[in-house]
Amino acid sequence: MVASQLAAVLSKLQTLYSDHASVVSMNLFVALLCASIVIGHLLEENRWMNESITALAIGLCTGVVILLTSGGKSSRLLVFSEDLFFIYLLPPIIFNAGFSVKKKQFFRNFITIMLFGAVGTLISWSIISFGVIKFFKEMDIGSLEIGDFLAIGAIFAATDSVCTLQVLNQDETPLLYSLVFGEGVVNDATSVVLFNAIQSFDLTNTNHRIALEFIGSFLYLFLASTLLGVAVGLVSAYIIKTLYFGRHSTDREFALMMLMAYLSYIMAELFYLSGILTVFFCGIVMSHYTWHNVTESSRITSKHAFATLSFVCETFIFLHVGMDALDIETWKFVNDRPGTSIIVSSVLLALVMAGRAAFVFPLSFLSNLAHKSANEKISFRQQIIIWWAGLMRGAVSMALAYNQFTRAGHTQLRCNAIMITSTITVVLFSSVVFGLMTKPLIRFLLPHSKVTSEPSRSSSPKSITVPFLGSTQDSFEDSPKGVQQPSSIRALLTTPTHTVHYYWRKFDNAFMRPVFGGRGFVPFVPGSPAERSEHKLPQLQ
Amino acid sequence: MVASQLAAVLSKLQTLYSDHASVVSMNLFVALLCASIVIGHLLEENRWMNESITALAIGLCTGVVILLTSGGKSSRLLVFSEDLFFIYLLPPIIFNAGFSVKKKQFFRNFITIMLFGAVGTLISWSIISFGVIKFFKEMDIGSLEIGDFLAIGAIFAATDSVCTLQVLNQDETPLLYSLVFGEGVVNDATSVVLFNAIQSFDLTNTNHRIALEFIGSFLYLFLASTLLGVAVGLVSAYIIKTLYFGRHSTDREFALMMLMAYLSYIMAELFYLSGILTVFFCGIVMSHYTWHNVTESSRITSKHAFATLSFVCETFIFLHVGMDALDIETWKFVNDRPGTSIIVSSVLLALVMAGRAAFVFPLSFLSNLAHKSANEKISFRQQIIIWWAGLMRGAVSMALAYNQFTRAGHTQLRCNAIMITSTITVVLFSSVVFGLMTKPLIRFLLPHSKVTSEPSRSSSPKSITVPFLGSTQDSFEDSPKGVQQPSSIRALLTTPTHTVHYYWRKFDNAFMRPVFGGRGFVPFVPGSPAERSEHKLPQLQ
Repeated sequence: MVASQLAAVLSKLQTLYSDHASVVSMNLFVALLCASIVIGHLLEENRWMNESITALAIGLCTGVVILLTSGGKSSRLLVFSEDLFFIYLLPPIIFNAGFSVKKKQFFRNFITIMLFGAVGTLISWSIISFGVIKFFKEMDIGSLEIGDFLAIGAIFAATDSVCTLQVLNQDETPLLYSLVFGEGVVNDATSVVLFNAIQSFDLTNTNHRIALEFIGSFLYLFLASTLLGVAVGLVSAYIIKTLYFGRHSTDREFALMMLMAYLSYIMAELFYLSGILTVFFCGIVMSHYTWHNVTESSRITSKHAFATLSFVCETFIFLHVGMDALDIETWKFVNDRPGTSIIVSSVLLALVMAGRAAFVFPLSFLSNLAHKSANEKISFRQQIIIWWAGLMRGAVSMALAYNQFTRAGHTQLRCNAIMITSTITVVLFSSVVFGLMTKPLIRFLLPHSKVTSEPSRSSSPKSITVPFLGSTQDSFEDSPKGVQQPSSIRALLTTPTHTVHYYWRKFDNAFMRPVFGGRGFVPFVPGSPAERSEHKLPQLQ
Repeated sequence: MVASQLAAVLSKLQTLYSDHASVVSMNLFVALLCASIVIGHLLEENRWMNESITALAIGLCTGVVILLTSGGKSSRLLVFSEDLFFIYLLPPIIFNAGFSVKKKQFFRNFITIMLFGAVGTLISWSIISFGVIKFFKEMDIGSLEIGDFLAIGAIFAATDSVCTLQVLNQDETPLLYSLVFGEGVVNDATSVVLFNAIQSFDLTNTNHRIALEFIGSFLYLFLASTLLGVAVGLVSAYIIKTLYFGRHSTDREFALMMLMAYLSYIMAELFYLSGILTVFFCGIVMSHYTWHNVTESSRITSKHAFATLSFVCETFIFLHVGMDALDIETWKFVNDRPGTSIIVSSVLLALVMAGRAAFVFPLSFLSNLAHKSANEKISFRQQIIIWWAGLMRGAVSMALAYNQFTRAGHTQLRCNAIMITSTITVVLFSSVVFGLMTKPLIRFLLPHSKVTSEPSRSSSPKSITVPFLGSTQDSFEDSPKGVQQPSSIRALLTTPTHTVHYYWRKFDNAFMRPVFGGRGFVPFVPGSPAERSEHKLPQLQ
């Protein structure tokens, strides 16, 4: 996948970087990135705005200015390329998501997240596809085939995990964050897998065998990608633990972590797996093992450098989407009948909302059945927020839409142009409107969320409130208090995640950590000063 | 410059990334980078090896393996492109060099560095050009024009500052490091400026006016590039000081530093200046002002992340040069007469050594005349090391040679092929032989260098021995002890750098630091606890 995409992005870029004007574009783009960061910072106290919307707005404004100064010819500095997005921008974001996710929460809700991310996306996809087939066939929007309709389903089933990260707060609403964000990552992978499957499968003669094959390939992709990510993460932990023990060098450690993380992503592409899932699980494993094997300064550096990289990539994406929204070429094609585009966008938005509602509430009900304690059940208000926070569509949708509808050169066909502009409309509308409404909605529905969550962590930026190494230290530390040792098979059935978690911790401490390092490798046993100092020595050297 | 280069690199890359094989290449390349880091670490205790040579060797071995497995067809994973090098790999290396250079040493020796870097490079260039014209006209190596000969002079006048960084130790031999490395950066810029001037000037009718124009454009480039770098650095300091005061966020601070640094580089390209000089001075200014305005974790992160980025880029370059050395296509052209290539390489190596000797010893003599104290004079033994450590030729030479001799497609002309293979030979030979011999030579000539330099800093990696924020804290701190207040004009003439330094410090403390932050912004005045706590507050928040 990467290879053909790279060829495509390079041919696109080549047309751009052919004169001095491209240097101007690069300058302007980097300057805009700086401006987005500064303005996003200044608007931080604003309860409505977030950095994504700021970047989107700056992109839109720049687009308008360029459109006006260039006399309506072009609004773009760089052509949006799904390839640039998938190869360079997405991996750091998803890796950092895995690297900084609260693992305890994530794995405690693992089954629910999987339900939402895999089954839910399939439900959402089928509803959107079905609705699109039903509505669009009656409307006159050109020659779309069955494959196009299914692709539209996959395009709009992809939630925007990047935007979600900005709207929900890991410290304020940990359960919601882990559910919505975890779902988002699995959902991204599911959508991409679905999309590729639709493009490659022969859809003219659908039957049960193909459906089974499809499920089989999905499961294979999911498991293989996860295992690859875990394996690369473990190898990195083992290398750093074995070779660097006692004579640490921050530059080498951090370089190795960065390179291994990217290696996991391109290895997944090598084996035709889902790089998103791989790099996500690689991030989780690295933060659980590798991160604990490196020096103090490597920890601080890796934590912040990965977060910064991810932050810059996110800002880049939103800036780009904002600038791309005014692509005059595409809008010209739908200019003659603006009503159609509006109707198409509205239908798609409605389907997105319906498709998400169709799985959030039933699957939450199922999930609640499995949990006994009221603390872990998903309340109806929380369900509304989960439904709402996942309505945003973002760069993944854009990338997939461009892939599907601009393959034969530019958007020359009117139906393709309509789909592109509708996608842009849906992405802009959902990012801005749903994005703006999420924070107030959470305040309205869960007014006490700040109080019930961890104390003293207010809404100020992470790097201030959290001490240097805070946010990744919760891994599996304080869980024993909440976990009762299972007394019987019944307990295993009623509290499956807790039990799995319990046995995982035993296994982790007995086998994994002695080999791969991690917290167990540098145990802060209170009553054993000898061991502590012995283990702390390599850090202090 | 960037624009046409980008177009070229993209067209080159496009032919590569056209199938699954390119994903394999990317995987192999990233894996080799990891391997270089690990093996370089394991060989650290070895007194002969350094990381550059390790990466070169791994590149060579990989080249041989690929050559054998592909049946002698190709030895390369990626085509070496000067554009990739100049746009992506060189900026982080030079920026980090400026960011981590010991500023006190650098500015104390500023005039000497300038003498070596600008005048010395011109001397070296003219000697190599003259020698090449004299020798090659007698040999039968094809139709080289006067422009080619002058370009060869510029190509081989470019020392390898990257390799120098690895061979000399900032803590063990601070004077030598600052001289050789500072010279290297100015030398890189001089060579690139020279090279571009040769390519663009009409050399058929040379006269005095052109020579004056040339000197004028060189001075303009030098001053304008420096000023631009300083300006961007100051803007970054001002933005972070003004906007972020009191509510720091590491991600934003680090992102802004990174983006502004790159912005300085591409702005230099925008104005047709020397990006190398710009980004180097931007790094110096950022470490003097901006770095002191950010939070503690931002400091650690930026220090190590920039160093790591630079480290990875260096490793990438050496790996690539090693792999590229076996480019079978080019070697085929010189295969019929291998003797010519060897003679050409030997002549070039001899000229490189003569050209460097011709300016190191006379200019050192001049520099010694200006310094009174024996401590600051460059001893003859040190002169030998300066001469020797700057003999290595590296990626800049490769990039310029590829630019000059492969412009019309591949190396189809025999004389071009000879020049490419000779450049590769000189680069490999000088990197490996001179690189390997430098450490022992320093031990032989300056056996007490470790003792006379700062105590307790042994040869272990920087990040261990230097405390978290150590290496950039020496900026202008302890200089007052060594600086006598100038009593007369005579003092200004005899100790010009010290006097300049003294007035600079007064100016810095009175005007610059209050506006742009820096160390003066958070003064550690011992007798003023009130001010200290007041100034420290924003850091602790």
